[in-house]
Amino acid sequence: MTLATLFEKIKEKKSYLCIGLDPAMHKIPKHLLQYDDPIFEFNKQIIDATLPYCVAYKPNVAFYEALGTKGWETLEKTFNYLPQEIFTIADAKRGDIGNTSACYAQAFFEHMNVDAITVAPYMGKDTVKPFLIYENKWVILLALTSNASSKDFQTLYLKDSNEQLFERVVKESLLWATPDQLMFVVGATQAKMLTKIRAMIPQHFLLIPGVGTQGGSLEEVSQLGMNQQCGLLVNVSRSIIYASKDKDFASQAAAAAKKVQQEMKKFLDILL
Amino acid sequence: MTLATLFEKIKEKKSYLCIGLDPAMHKIPKHLLQYDDPIFEFNKQIIDATLPYCVAYKPNVAFYEALGTKGWETLEKTFNYLPQEIFTIADAKRGDIGNTSACYAQAFFEHMNVDAITVAPYMGKDTVKPFLIYENKWVILLALTSNASSKDFQTLYLKDSNEQLFERVVKESLLWATPDQLMFVVGATQAKMLTKIRAMIPQHFLLIPGVGTQGGSLEEVSQLGMNQQCGLLVNVSRSIIYASKDKDFASQAAAAAKKVQQEMKKFLDILL
Repeated sequence: MTLATLFEKIKEKKSYLCIGLDPAMHKIPKHLLQYDDPIFEFNKQIIDATLPYCVAYKPNVAFYEALGTKGWETLEKTFNYLPQEIFTIADAKRGDIGNTSACYAQAFFEHMNVDAITVAPYMGKDTVKPFLIYENKWVILLALTSNASSKDFQTLYLKDSNEQLFERVVKESLLWATPDQLMFVVGATQAKMLTKIRAMIPQHFLLIPGVGTQGGSLEEVSQLGMNQQCGLLVNVSRSIIYASKDKDFASQAAAAAKKVQQEMKKFLDILL
Repeated sequence: MTLATLFEKIKEKKSYLCIGLDPAMHKIPKHLLQYDDPIFEFNKQIIDATLPYCVAYKPNVAFYEALGTKGWETLEKTFNYLPQEIFTIADAKRGDIGNTSACYAQAFFEHMNVDAITVAPYMGKDTVKPFLIYENKWVILLALTSNASSKDFQTLYLKDSNEQLFERVVKESLLWATPDQLMFVVGATQAKMLTKIRAMIPQHFLLIPGVGTQGGSLEEVSQLGMNQQCGLLVNVSRSIIYASKDKDFASQAAAAAKKVQQEMKKFLDILL
């Protein structure tokens, strides 16, 4: 999907919500366990119910790998089930030397036909380049993550430039790709950094996890992070997909998604 | 596997060779394509032939993911096929926030029962902790990798301490785990840094990729990196597994592995 198409979808749906599909067998409603593939059934019903309110879905690959081969199959089925017009993200945080990253690109861009994959930057340009040869596919590079330990390394100051490590990651990566291929992960819990980040990358989309269970504020993120093409995909996982643990889980998920979308509409109305 | 057991195996086999099982469908001998699972058949024959000469195997997960669900199944079969007494490494370079890393730990330490997994450090302590609750299992943390772009971020100097980023990664991680749970990836192409690294971590094992096709020197790595318990697992992939592309691929792989092992024996004889 191109940046222009993504922005069209955002305007159409008045939403920049990304729903994180991170289901665990012990957390989904009990009545689904009778299905042959309970996790897929859960995802399917969540997708059907929440599709009007979001522009993207982001399965976190770890939750599927935890179930072994069967889980990998569920992941493939989930990506296949998602309609063409929705932006799909494999939250995989991959990254390795060139010939290995090429295999990861093949896995996610070819086999699963996702629009985007999250990539870890520690190993540098080599690790990112093989993902960039695919047209209309995206790398979402970890910049400043939502977890407490992001301070262990990401915010350390560098001697040569007085930048923080995550700033250098962002700046360096601008040499590798255009804003049509590259987004950045910035945690909602890092909202106060968004002004600084937007000054560096006024045009790029940001994928913002950490709203909801992790405590980030949608209002703050939207006010500080939006650009003229919205520029934000805000991810919410647990507070939507686990809005109810009963038979009404899908309609409750839809209600929770709609509530977020309605708030997003307010911020988009100011922008547009 | 414990550190003591690993060292016993090294002494027994006079080898600290780790063989990288990174097979690609277009690179394995053509006659294997008639098998139901050509990659597994390739791995099986490589393992059977090279087992006397190595102490560890390291499938790189990307090569299996590139084949989709079927590839994931092949990876599981490969780990199941590897005998209990060999050290097994999932080269997966995973790392995510706590609840997600816990899923990756479940995938590799429970489903696949591997001894060790490679982990990327960018997101800090949160990403590593969930792997450390497993007894006799190992995290192999990326420190200084073998690729050219390792210089993009890993070797940058930090303002607060005049350390390079990879040094800080090593030092910080020493607070999280003991030498019985934690190894580090240091590329063979970075051999001149080994003296510095050994001064910081005299006891830890290092996983050294980059000997062979990538151009690192076994002699240099061994001379600079060994400690009193060997402390090295040197990985060789392509120059062993693709020693021949014909029907004799397994015996040629064995010959290539034996050649490396014979050289390792010389260095071990000096140490022991």
